[in-house]
Amino acid sequence: MQVFEQMLSSSPNRTGQDRGTLEDCIQACAECGLTCTSCADACLGERELESLRKCIRLNQDCADTCGVTGTILARQFDGDVDFIRALLESCARICAACGAECQKHAEHHEHCRICADSCRRCEEQCRAALRMLPASA
Amino acid sequence: MQVFEQMLSSSPNRTGQDRGTLEDCIQACAECGLTCTSCADACLGERELESLRKCIRLNQDCADTCGVTGTILARQFDGDVDFIRALLESCARICAACGAECQKHAEHHEHCRICADSCRRCEEQCRAALRMLPASA
Amino acid sequence: MQVFEQMLSSSPNRTGQDRGTLEDCIQACAECGLTCTSCADACLGERELESLRKCIRLNQDCADTCGVTGTILARQFDGDVDFIRALLESCARICAACGAECQKHAEHHEHCRICADSCRRCEEQCRAALRMLPASA
Amino acid sequence: MQVFEQMLSSSPNRTGQDRGTLEDCIQACAECGLTCTSCADACLGERELESLRKCIRLNQDCADTCGVTGTILARQFDGDVDFIRALLESCARICAACGAECQKHAEHHEHCRICADSCRRCEEQCRAALRMLPASA
Repeated sequence: MQVFEQMLSSSPNRTGQDRGTLEDCIQACAECGLTCTSCADACLGERELESLRKCIRLNQDCADTCGVTGTILARQFDGDVDFIRALLESCARICAACGAECQKHAEHHEHCRICADSCRRCEEQCRAALRMLPASA
Repeated sequence: MQVFEQMLSSSPNRTGQDRGTLEDCIQACAECGLTCTSCADACLGERELESLRKCIRLNQDCADTCGVTGTILARQFDGDVDFIRALLESCARICAACGAECQKHAEHHEHCRICADSCRRCEEQCRAALRMLPASA
Repeated sequence: MQVFEQMLSSSPNRTGQDRGTLEDCIQACAECGLTCTSCADACLGERELESLRKCIRLNQDCADTCGVTGTILARQFDGDVDFIRALLESCARICAACGAECQKHAEHHEHCRICADSCRRCEEQCRAALRMLPASA
Repeated sequence: MQVFEQMLSSSPNRTGQDRGTLEDCIQACAECGLTCTSCADACLGERELESLRKCIRLNQDCADTCGVTGTILARQFDGDVDFIRALLESCARICAACGAECQKHAEHHEHCRICADSCRRCEEQCRAALRMLPASA
């Protein structure tokens, strides 16, 4: 999403974060959100649905959380740093939990393997963004 | 939302949380989410828009976070406790920040006064839900 | 959510719609959104999960659509009437589809019975809101 | 988001739509959703905030609607075609309205120019997806 990079550069609002790290995190959240929605949906169509209940649950939570985290990071005007830190922590945590569950099914379901990778990347980007956050007031 | 209370009672999924506390928190999140959306919108129509920039920003973040927190708490099947704890922390934090900003405008704008109250109640309910969460694995 | 009613009354933004109808629709959307999230989650924990695949799918779509419809209706400042009409049509449509699917399982699952009722009420409220919308420009 | 393309290909759920068109629409929705969130935020930080009220309002609606449309299109299992058609219509409509408003500010604000382009692309992708939808039952 090159367009979105241009978008952030054209904003009058400055950010305490390194812009490249921030962009990478927003894009990882957007990708992971859609990937988790798609993995939950793919699981719903699998024959061995029984064993995928927990995967669906965590995929739904991860999709919702990545979606809202990406949206909130896309706002640069005068946010609350302590909140953004807590939100990034929660996003990293659900990415870790969802990625670990997907990994268990990675040999049987290609969509779970891809989703586990996407969760890992998103967790890493959230952790990188956390390191860039300014100290709280 | 009495209907939603019946809904939770009819679920096969048990929860580690006290059901009344959980319901109260979900409903506080739903109310605070809509109230913050509405306060941001009301601010957008005020003559002294300049002074309400930060209020709009925090209202947007609070609306998004309360919405997703209520949704995730409404799921009872086999969630990740550490994630839910982190999410509730982040929701309590943005409610505190948004409520404090709205309070600054409470004398001039009735919608900010109402929103500040709604944020305080939601913060309290998130804190009550946090105390009910089972210890992490 | 009495608080939310006070909120709308304190907004500087006027609406072309009858306020009571608008409030009822927003609250029906909020309730139906949570009820559908909760029904999808309850289905996920049922023994006869196989027969509930489609119910879960439609519950997810209905939850997402009701959530965003309620949020957008809570904004009163200078919206686009043709868009709001199309959004209400799409919300009424998914409520009808989801309610019909839940109704098929209403005898076996109390949560599906409650959810079918909630979908019907939300569809009705969306249709009532549609009748109140000003003619498009 | 190449990852997401792989994701859709690995799903057991078949779609009535041409896969390339569907992917393009999902990605246009994801991009336009973030771009509109970012444009609303950039507007909030501009000196001439007064003239950007309507732009902020429409950006918010467009961000929410694109987000939910992308999410719902990412689900392939047994959806309701009439609903998806109505949702795509509503998404195309808000993209048109938001793009037209952003275009008015395109000479003064680069973020509005970029956002107007993103809205136009998303509207086109929604219309392309509409043409690919199977006839309703």
